[in-house]
Amino acid sequence: MKLMDLFVKMKGDLNEIEAELERAITSDHTLMTETSVHLLKAGGKRIRPIFVLLSGKFGQYRLDVMKNIAVPLELIHMASLVHDDVIDNAETRRGQLTVKSKWDNRIAMYTGDYIHGKALTVATKLDNPRIHQILSKAMVEMCIGEMEQIRDFFNTEQSVRQYLLRIRRKTALLIAISCQLGALAAETDEKYANRLYRFGYNVGMAFQIRDDVLDLCGTEKQIGKPPGSDIRQGNITLPVLLALHDTSLRPKLLQEIERIQSADGAAADTSEALRLIRSSNGIKQAEALADRYTQKALTALEGLPDLAAKKSLKDIARFVNKRNY
Amino acid sequence: MKLMDLFVKMKGDLNEIEAELERAITSDHTLMTETSVHLLKAGGKRIRPIFVLLSGKFGQYRLDVMKNIAVPLELIHMASLVHDDVIDNAETRRGQLTVKSKWDNRIAMYTGDYIHGKALTVATKLDNPRIHQILSKAMVEMCIGEMEQIRDFFNTEQSVRQYLLRIRRKTALLIAISCQLGALAAETDEKYANRLYRFGYNVGMAFQIRDDVLDLCGTEKQIGKPPGSDIRQGNITLPVLLALHDTSLRPKLLQEIERIQSADGAAADTSEALRLIRSSNGIKQAEALADRYTQKALTALEGLPDLAAKKSLKDIARFVNKRNY
Repeated sequence: MKLMDLFVKMKGDLNEIEAELERAITSDHTLMTETSVHLLKAGGKRIRPIFVLLSGKFGQYRLDVMKNIAVPLELIHMASLVHDDVIDNAETRRGQLTVKSKWDNRIAMYTGDYIHGKALTVATKLDNPRIHQILSKAMVEMCIGEMEQIRDFFNTEQSVRQYLLRIRRKTALLIAISCQLGALAAETDEKYANRLYRFGYNVGMAFQIRDDVLDLCGTEKQIGKPPGSDIRQGNITLPVLLALHDTSLRPKLLQEIERIQSADGAAADTSEALRLIRSSNGIKQAEALADRYTQKALTALEGLPDLAAKKSLKDIARFVNKRNY
Repeated sequence: MKLMDLFVKMKGDLNEIEAELERAITSDHTLMTETSVHLLKAGGKRIRPIFVLLSGKFGQYRLDVMKNIAVPLELIHMASLVHDDVIDNAETRRGQLTVKSKWDNRIAMYTGDYIHGKALTVATKLDNPRIHQILSKAMVEMCIGEMEQIRDFFNTEQSVRQYLLRIRRKTALLIAISCQLGALAAETDEKYANRLYRFGYNVGMAFQIRDDVLDLCGTEKQIGKPPGSDIRQGNITLPVLLALHDTSLRPKLLQEIERIQSADGAAADTSEALRLIRSSNGIKQAEALADRYTQKALTALEGLPDLAAKKSLKDIARFVNKRNY
């Protein structure tokens, strides 16, 4: 089951967003258009636009207004992926060649900058300065999150709190503001916008934790890249940190992580590290934390009017927390 | 003589901009603040803020408003430099280590993204949507210009027109909108904003042509990096294209460029290529074109009220066209 199947009623609007995404990145510059369209066609769950549209339902929903925030949020996400693939030296994403691998690092860097610029060009059609302020601050926080990830590569001494702060910036914030800005663009009650922000933030936290679990437990077919990619590049995620708390596993796991670090990147064999982590309670404990964030997300929705959109948001929150794709 | 010496009267305001630039890039993230401050302290002519402030003098000049556009424009310029240094594999700029060389490519990429985000955060304090539209479109064009530069590396068949289009996007546009947005932020007459745009555009073209000449004829002390850097990385600039038009030099120069291309980047000896270019009429013809752009810039100022700022803009245009730093 795919997320979009949940939204038969929204299909028309989501198709319009898809068309608008393509229009937004098309320019008379052939190569830039080609790299950006490649990135767009590689797919994605479009979870940010979905949250924008559903949140807009709590106010004056007008697709021609909503798309001016749905499109920039998805483009900002896409731009961050193309830069991350340079940093992570990733050959594939979602089973497709990355821009840096199909073209090169230089082209990937400018493609990211280009998509960023295009995102802003669309957003400037909205004249509410608060929307722009929230958007630009989130962009800064996202960069800081990415930098923290680099700083903490192979840092097995980091705390769970450090991990949570990092994924907050890296992932949860953009999903939180997708809900908030969808609400603000539809001029909802300020109270609703705040509740939707909290909903998005908690769904985002659950989403990233699930993503990190999947990278350790999923199959290449499920996740579109080889499992263990995170640990191979030094990204120490929650289940790993929790597994390291198990004193009987810790020495062996530390040794494996050190071996992966000394091996050269893509060549490193992660199978023993994955086996150790899967045998620990780290996965279960991480899933329990994702459950707690999901619960908080559902609680944040209480107090919102009982629209169909509220039911859909609940469904997505539960879906994100069970996903295996 | 330094450009800033021309502006004793503006010194207070420029110092305020300098302080604001530092405030803007400071965050509680130590590394990001450190890399950005390094970039800021490495200097720069601050020509974009100067143009913003002078253009604002034709309207309601309020420093606390003007700085919200002067700071973003300089930051956007800085962000593009830090990304360019990754692409160009540049070790030094203005005689200082680049971010990519003092830290690494990954950190330089996110530093650029971070500074971009901070630029927008400051700009969103202005609530004129037109300013944001012009700014975001220019950011897209700048990326396209950078991509065109990569595409045309070592392309000795490119036309002068291709070169001019590229520097238009890469350099002249940001200077043009510095003048235009300075005027718009000060709510000048629309006619004045258009004239100032044209002034900035033409100064920007002259500026980049002079920059390209300097890279071929200046000393390392003058330009803060080894001469011949452009040709070493494959950036075929106007004087080179014009030198290639000289049939007596063309075969030898083509051979040298080919040799530089096969040699590995930083190691390539450019002395013979530089000697050939300097012996051609390419330098003089390029300077003549820079003179023509400067003349057009001065003409664009006609019709503006005779303020001290008009005199200063004229002085800068002439200064840019004679600069050897």
